[in-house]
Amino acid sequence: MSADNQQERLDANWIVGFVDGEGCFHVSLNKQQKMTCKFQVLPEFRVVQHEKDIAVLFRLKDFFKCGNIVTNHGTRKEFRVRGQKSLAKIVAFFSKYPLQTSKQKNFEKFVEVFELIEQKKHLTQEGIFEIAKIISTMNRASRILRDYTPNTQKCDDIVRPA
Amino acid sequence: MSADNQQERLDANWIVGFVDGEGCFHVSLNKQQKMTCKFQVLPEFRVVQHEKDIAVLFRLKDFFKCGNIVTNHGTRKEFRVRGQKSLAKIVAFFSKYPLQTSKQKNFEKFVEVFELIEQKKHLTQEGIFEIAKIISTMNRASRILRDYTPNTQKCDDIVRPA
Repeated sequence: MSADNQQERLDANWIVGFVDGEGCFHVSLNKQQKMTCKFQVLPEFRVVQHEKDIAVLFRLKDFFKCGNIVTNHGTRKEFRVRGQKSLAKIVAFFSKYPLQTSKQKNFEKFVEVFELIEQKKHLTQEGIFEIAKIISTMNRASRILRDYTPNTQKCDDIVRPA
Repeated sequence: MSADNQQERLDANWIVGFVDGEGCFHVSLNKQQKMTCKFQVLPEFRVVQHEKDIAVLFRLKDFFKCGNIVTNHGTRKEFRVRGQKSLAKIVAFFSKYPLQTSKQKNFEKFVEVFELIEQKKHLTQEGIFEIAKIISTMNRASRILRDYTPNTQKCDDIVRPA
């Protein structure tokens, strides 16, 4: 690993450390009237940096061979991975190289959602209910889940339009 | 590296990644009337985390065999390293394992200051002047250096009481 060659492949453990600091495993649940189950589950992995460090985001993209570099907000850019096929690479990597901070617990919940989607459970009311319960325990629960109380509400009540 | 054993020694590359995300190489210049040169140079390395991740800060302390865990602000804790003997370990480590983001440039400036102190240059007006110039180009220049203009001001004008 050398700072002189910014195109050199990143070290796996470096990535784990960087993601322990800067990464985010997020799942949002969005109301979609057109969908059979009325809700779209959107899991995504992202790493945000100031645009001056956009090079390192491209190196992450090169490493994982998936994802995109997009604008997060203002001068902040993000390496963003969406879609089951791409997220499978992310899940496989962090399953092999565990995070060392409390972010590991969030990752494990992210994997639970990822696997429920793999099993097509997100296409059923029960699956959405289960996913909503998982999301509500994650670090940054979606705004639409903030007031969700699993024991007293039904699935249809979980998500309010954003 | 295993998440099951939080006491396991951290991987060197993981540390570089984590510090690329969360670390800070900082030098402050404080007015001290009692000192011969009137100024105290205070270089420090720190990594700040929410208190829920204090364990990882202790693991950094164990790895480097120096530094302290102190409260940064509110629920935020920091692994802080001060003093030339301790900072020598930090400088040696990141010289061997370079940072991969723009933080590397900041680290190189930090090393310049570290070396000037090693040479006792910080005990002279010229040395303080040189250090002040370096600090003014670092990421988070001290408040007392914000208005510093090297070509038009003398050393004594550099530092205003905080």
